[in-house]
Amino acid sequence: MNFGEKLNNIIQKKNSLLCVGLDTVLERIPAEIRRQDNTLFAFNKAIIDATADFAAAYKVNTAFYEAYGVQGWRALKQIFDYLPESTISIADAKRGDIGNTAKMYARALFEDLGADAITVNPLMGKDSVSPFLENPEKGVFFLCLTSNPGSADLQHFSDGRQELYERIVELVNGWNTEGNCGLVVGATHPDELGRIRRAAADVPFLIPGIGAQGGDLVSSVVNGTDANGRSALFNSSRAIIYASSDADFADAARRQAEATRNKLNEARTKKK
Amino acid sequence: MNFGEKLNNIIQKKNSLLCVGLDTVLERIPAEIRRQDNTLFAFNKAIIDATADFAAAYKVNTAFYEAYGVQGWRALKQIFDYLPESTISIADAKRGDIGNTAKMYARALFEDLGADAITVNPLMGKDSVSPFLENPEKGVFFLCLTSNPGSADLQHFSDGRQELYERIVELVNGWNTEGNCGLVVGATHPDELGRIRRAAADVPFLIPGIGAQGGDLVSSVVNGTDANGRSALFNSSRAIIYASSDADFADAARRQAEATRNKLNEARTKKK
Repeated sequence: MNFGEKLNNIIQKKNSLLCVGLDTVLERIPAEIRRQDNTLFAFNKAIIDATADFAAAYKVNTAFYEAYGVQGWRALKQIFDYLPESTISIADAKRGDIGNTAKMYARALFEDLGADAITVNPLMGKDSVSPFLENPEKGVFFLCLTSNPGSADLQHFSDGRQELYERIVELVNGWNTEGNCGLVVGATHPDELGRIRRAAADVPFLIPGIGAQGGDLVSSVVNGTDANGRSALFNSSRAIIYASSDADFADAARRQAEATRNKLNEARTKKK
Repeated sequence: MNFGEKLNNIIQKKNSLLCVGLDTVLERIPAEIRRQDNTLFAFNKAIIDATADFAAAYKVNTAFYEAYGVQGWRALKQIFDYLPESTISIADAKRGDIGNTAKMYARALFEDLGADAITVNPLMGKDSVSPFLENPEKGVFFLCLTSNPGSADLQHFSDGRQELYERIVELVNGWNTEGNCGLVVGATHPDELGRIRRAAADVPFLIPGIGAQGGDLVSSVVNGTDANGRSALFNSSRAIIYASSDADFADAARRQAEATRNKLNEARTKKK
């Protein structure tokens, strides 16, 4: 089963398009967890336990752990080991480098951490992405049109016929011979999301920006999912994991994850 | 003193444009070192000791350590701690993400590892690079035109007036208000290197590809250095660190580093 099929099976089985983003900042962890050893893992374990019923996927942003050096990397590994088999685990690392280096990143993320999928920056082109695509079961979400304001600087650069992000879609369609390529498209661009979906009918999308970044949830679901309302994961990080800064943070995260899962499913029904 | 000035001081003081790339693959480490504990660090320590007289900079490709998980990250930290103050230490990590994430990467690379400079992928635009540019003493080399074949896929995408890599040069010139921006331009593109140098007169260049990747050294030096034959680092990794696979690997690396340093200086004299 290739990554695209695996993802849609999980979306169907869990009846969820929700991806919970585990972007942990030590300073925002509730005091009672901060007093424990191995705070980074303890907090994430509590969040995972609380939200696993509603999440189709977890996206772990590696930067938030790399910032704490060796300890952070250890927590990252523990988190990936702990993530439930019944969800997709994504290492959001945005790597990309020449072939022999890309092979080492693939080893780090797919083998050492054991991620089911990763994010990759396609700027260096085909030979830089090939090592990530060798195993059809492992997914690669390529940066295409990101949710931040700076996305305009290069991603909208146009040759008159198409913009750079559309060129990326075209390239990724060509690289997707094994059904394991995906695209990262921000929820802050609902119109382009529809255009990209038309160009890449059943490629999985990873869609950040529905929470703290303010993208519109309903139009993102309507435009971003495939014809069956699948092939898309909607990431929410801060709105869920910091739903409360008190002792009830896990319950609050659970309620927020359930509510977001439900809102995403409700938006699916608006798809014609 | 900003990063650009610091770099040129070191180039002058050491009379060298050489950057030694520490891209260590365990399988290529000589047997006698492989028998030691903490092999990754032991090998790099021996290479650093052997080559420090000739290197203006060391570029540590983080992927090659991330591939070994927690142990690899520990070796990475030890290597950065060991690198001599008299050289520029570069974390070649090619990171890039939205602002709050970029801040965490900056912390990981500049603070935890203590790198003097890093490589950054500019695809996500200004707000994704700003957190890396806050300290004028810390340098950021932006991917511009890379040395690999896949560079053609997106970096040559053209709007009729300019290609994407030229747009990157333009953006980076705009971001370089503190004198701490640089560009990564592969030695495999000597003509474009000259064009980029004309557009960015004294921006530091990090130029990979003169060794195993087969770029032309002389024309890269002539085209890539600034008017004074400075503001450029030429990276050689495999040709130096694997100059011998036997017990004499350190001596062989030293000889190769010295020869490459001399070739680079000789090429400088050909600059008109």
